[in-house]
Amino acid sequence: MANLSNIKIKLLNKDIASIIINEPKTYNALSLKNLGDLIKAFKKLDENKNIKVIIIEGSGKGFSAGHNLKEVSGLKKREKYQKLFNLCSKLMLQIVEGKKPVIAKVHGAAFAAGCQLVASCDLAYSTNDAIFATPGVNIGLFCSTPMVAVSRKVNRKRMMHMLLTGEPIKADYAKEIGLVNNHFSKSKLNNEVLKVAKTIASKSSLTIKIGKQTFYNQLEMPLRKAYAYTSKMMTKNMMAMDAKEGISAFLQKRKPKWKHK
Amino acid sequence: MANLSNIKIKLLNKDIASIIINEPKTYNALSLKNLGDLIKAFKKLDENKNIKVIIIEGSGKGFSAGHNLKEVSGLKKREKYQKLFNLCSKLMLQIVEGKKPVIAKVHGAAFAAGCQLVASCDLAYSTNDAIFATPGVNIGLFCSTPMVAVSRKVNRKRMMHMLLTGEPIKADYAKEIGLVNNHFSKSKLNNEVLKVAKTIASKSSLTIKIGKQTFYNQLEMPLRKAYAYTSKMMTKNMMAMDAKEGISAFLQKRKPKWKHK
Amino acid sequence: MANLSNIKIKLLNKDIASIIINEPKTYNALSLKNLGDLIKAFKKLDENKNIKVIIIEGSGKGFSAGHNLKEVSGLKKREKYQKLFNLCSKLMLQIVEGKKPVIAKVHGAAFAAGCQLVASCDLAYSTNDAIFATPGVNIGLFCSTPMVAVSRKVNRKRMMHMLLTGEPIKADYAKEIGLVNNHFSKSKLNNEVLKVAKTIASKSSLTIKIGKQTFYNQLEMPLRKAYAYTSKMMTKNMMAMDAKEGISAFLQKRKPKWKHK
Repeated sequence: MANLSNIKIKLLNKDIASIIINEPKTYNALSLKNLGDLIKAFKKLDENKNIKVIIIEGSGKGFSAGHNLKEVSGLKKREKYQKLFNLCSKLMLQIVEGKKPVIAKVHGAAFAAGCQLVASCDLAYSTNDAIFATPGVNIGLFCSTPMVAVSRKVNRKRMMHMLLTGEPIKADYAKEIGLVNNHFSKSKLNNEVLKVAKTIASKSSLTIKIGKQTFYNQLEMPLRKAYAYTSKMMTKNMMAMDAKEGISAFLQKRKPKWKHK
Repeated sequence: MANLSNIKIKLLNKDIASIIINEPKTYNALSLKNLGDLIKAFKKLDENKNIKVIIIEGSGKGFSAGHNLKEVSGLKKREKYQKLFNLCSKLMLQIVEGKKPVIAKVHGAAFAAGCQLVASCDLAYSTNDAIFATPGVNIGLFCSTPMVAVSRKVNRKRMMHMLLTGEPIKADYAKEIGLVNNHFSKSKLNNEVLKVAKTIASKSSLTIKIGKQTFYNQLEMPLRKAYAYTSKMMTKNMMAMDAKEGISAFLQKRKPKWKHK
Repeated sequence: MANLSNIKIKLLNKDIASIIINEPKTYNALSLKNLGDLIKAFKKLDENKNIKVIIIEGSGKGFSAGHNLKEVSGLKKREKYQKLFNLCSKLMLQIVEGKKPVIAKVHGAAFAAGCQLVASCDLAYSTNDAIFATPGVNIGLFCSTPMVAVSRKVNRKRMMHMLLTGEPIKADYAKEIGLVNNHFSKSKLNNEVLKVAKTIASKSSLTIKIGKQTFYNQLEMPLRKAYAYTSKMMTKNMMAMDAKEGISAFLQKRKPKWKHK
């Protein structure tokens, strides 16, 4: 598949692709260029009809150190900072609002915007020795955009400890507090992530798309509105071919044949 | 007490009633008829002045398999699906918005809308071998209405794993993630649930009613508004006889005698 | 430092102050007078340029029993109750909306509004034998204002169990459900809290102030709005001297010198 500079796309299976941040010398920093290319890569895969699940990972020593501080240091002007943080937010929103499930596969460190990237994915798995942090306070720049993603998954007091002290947390604690789904030894991580991705890829892509988008939308609604909205979306889902086929297959005790593979 | 077809009401104590979904041959499926009768049963007990706590349980092999797929398969028309999902949402809202605490007592499987029913209750207890799932993706119909209830209790990444893979979770994990309060051996479950129900039934029903309704309402408000609202509700609670009696009894070191038993 | 009747302020370090509720004979009850004086103490420390972290603790046998029931019993009129609950809410909002991180240091019991006070702080640590409860149902007065703070940290079903039964929970469970960050032996608690406070006090106070306020504000926004808001706040943070100094120090591998100590 096509490669955009430091952001590479690798096909892991006929319907599973991995986006690799391949800039080990900056610890896969989320520079303006890398952010822009990541957005392009996610959009490209979201449009690609063969791809059903997207994995995001880093190359080299770890996942991502967050913003490129050398670059940040040179921006100097308010408009340029605003542009950087807006672009970073745009990437995170693309992941949440996209059509396809995104799985973070994390090794080494996921710091600041790198930690935000992990939190923004639908699922996340890491190595046993991965570490996570929102360490902005250490450089006088509070992790304000990262906390948007993390605080929607992690208890407030635990998040506040991460934000106020800047200290990293380990994979087992990240699992305990719901930042990642699970952690595995380095030798097993690839296979475990691929196994989950294949399970998801075996479902109807139309169903998954409706479900993912409905999930994040309903979370922001009060209860009564959420029920009115999801009842409507479930009806829409039911009127599509795949639900009818799925229910028929279930009743006939056979495997469903999805129209929307 | 009166019985509505497959939905039975059983008095467990002078002030504790259990609603039993008694359709073992469909694994207590939530058909249109059963949903309608469950709503009637909950309303009936909510109006009954002697009842202070409501328990909901399934008969036969387990709690509930969710919608009746045979029935769903025959509905065919958009309006009929919409009606089904609306009715199901109405049941869940009745439980949340009702006056009395509702406890789910779960054995076997609680799947799809059955899992939603567990999540919608104020408290939930299960057997050690109970299992829970939002398996809609397996039949091409994402568990969009069930996730409204579950995602308001369970961390987003854990919920997403349940939704995207459709895989069931076990009782101990359901406790860990906050979907149930606790799990017990089959021989102990009845007694443990009854113990909690009796503790709650020993409180003032007026106080519990104000509290339950205030709880869910304030959760949907921003902080300042939530404080203004709950301060007002607590004042209302304070002006009612039971708070005055409760405080007097506390100061006089005696048992309170509730007006609203 | 100045002392306001039963509310004492003690300097623990050049930039860390502790507010002590010093009314052991009422178990540090949150009377009208104590609530008013606590608000004054928090405001005073929030204005004090030397103080970077605030600790709140109780003296004598425990943290706080909540409202003074003897006083409550004598208020009698609706307006007086309303005034009491409004004042209590004002204290909690002062802690959340203040500029400086607040850490609860808890020993013994933290009940009702005392439990709310713990939940309202940014961080909380307790002794191993500390207990927490929202026991209002026992006196006919549902813990409606306390649950505003607690339910924004604790899973709904677990919170409902606390509210409906009134039963206390232990420190290890309070940690498990995210009500406190950690618990220690009595002999270690002081030092452990001071260690966290010193870590936070070593950061730029301007950065911490922007971060704390942005944190609670963004939590109440839908995702897109939260990103727009935090991107703006992060730009503001970046334009202030401390972020530039922090990043320079990081790139030059030296310790930062904060302008806003």
